[in-house]
Amino acid sequence: MSAMEPHLTTLSVLVENQPGVLARVAGLIARRGYNIESLAVGPTDDPGFSRMTLVVDQTQTHVEQIVKQLYKLINVIKIIELDPTDSIERELLLVRVACTAETRFQVLELAEIFEAKVADVGAESVALELSGPPSRLNDLLELVEQHGIKEVARTGRIGLERARKRAAI
Amino acid sequence: MSAMEPHLTTLSVLVENQPGVLARVAGLIARRGYNIESLAVGPTDDPGFSRMTLVVDQTQTHVEQIVKQLYKLINVIKIIELDPTDSIERELLLVRVACTAETRFQVLELAEIFEAKVADVGAESVALELSGPPSRLNDLLELVEQHGIKEVARTGRIGLERARKRAAI
Repeated sequence: MSAMEPHLTTLSVLVENQPGVLARVAGLIARRGYNIESLAVGPTDDPGFSRMTLVVDQTQTHVEQIVKQLYKLINVIKIIELDPTDSIERELLLVRVACTAETRFQVLELAEIFEAKVADVGAESVALELSGPPSRLNDLLELVEQHGIKEVARTGRIGLERARKRAAI
Repeated sequence: MSAMEPHLTTLSVLVENQPGVLARVAGLIARRGYNIESLAVGPTDDPGFSRMTLVVDQTQTHVEQIVKQLYKLINVIKIIELDPTDSIERELLLVRVACTAETRFQVLELAEIFEAKVADVGAESVALELSGPPSRLNDLLELVEQHGIKEVARTGRIGLERARKRAAI
């Protein structure tokens, strides 16, 4: 992949858990005109810190600029650029699929194939819960589309470096 | 629960997928001094829209103010306040747990009990992937803590209204 070509890059950013950190991070990226493909902010095992995982579709040069700028924000502690080949990337999907009593088994069959959990069942719909690589979530969405998608919520991806990569450092 | 007491509230916000939307939403909440407990931004089935799920720890009065203010932002289309009793709330956790060849089976046993997936295995650690209600993720974290937690990434919660609730509207 050329450094000049935009590509999806996942940045795992450890920040202090302070009001306004998210606004500063999001503001910095917005001011530079970069769109954020997905963002997930969650707690870590230390209540003083949160981890933001953000995905941007940028050239390598722009990614390096973003990282440099983010490090200038006082509440940003550490940034890891997750290399797709050396990391585990996962996302969570909740999707409510339309169905009737007659077509429900088809939706449940797809759930079973994908090892998705059934999160809720109604008279006219089934809600599925699937975690996995983002591409797998897309595959399920594509297959349930014929039944009709009533609602979708996705978390955006999070990731960890692989153990082998960690060992090599 | 008293309206005067702060409590965790989940807001599901449908926004136009435009650069800067996240910065405006985060900026608005930060200016008012509210901290965001967790935030997940992901795509919807329509590429023109994203869904932000944000969790705030505020009184009902403050939550209503936040909702009112958010609606004033031009890219905000729709906001649903997810009532915990009438909605499915889920989160995704990746955790790398320290282990040796001797203690690995204990970690794998916990994974099995929680129906967590093994996302990666190294010589000195196992990475687990678990989706479910946030409290369940906390339970797993508490149990693996004795082995040593090397790294944690969480998405923040996402949610859908239950079918029965939807039928009642």
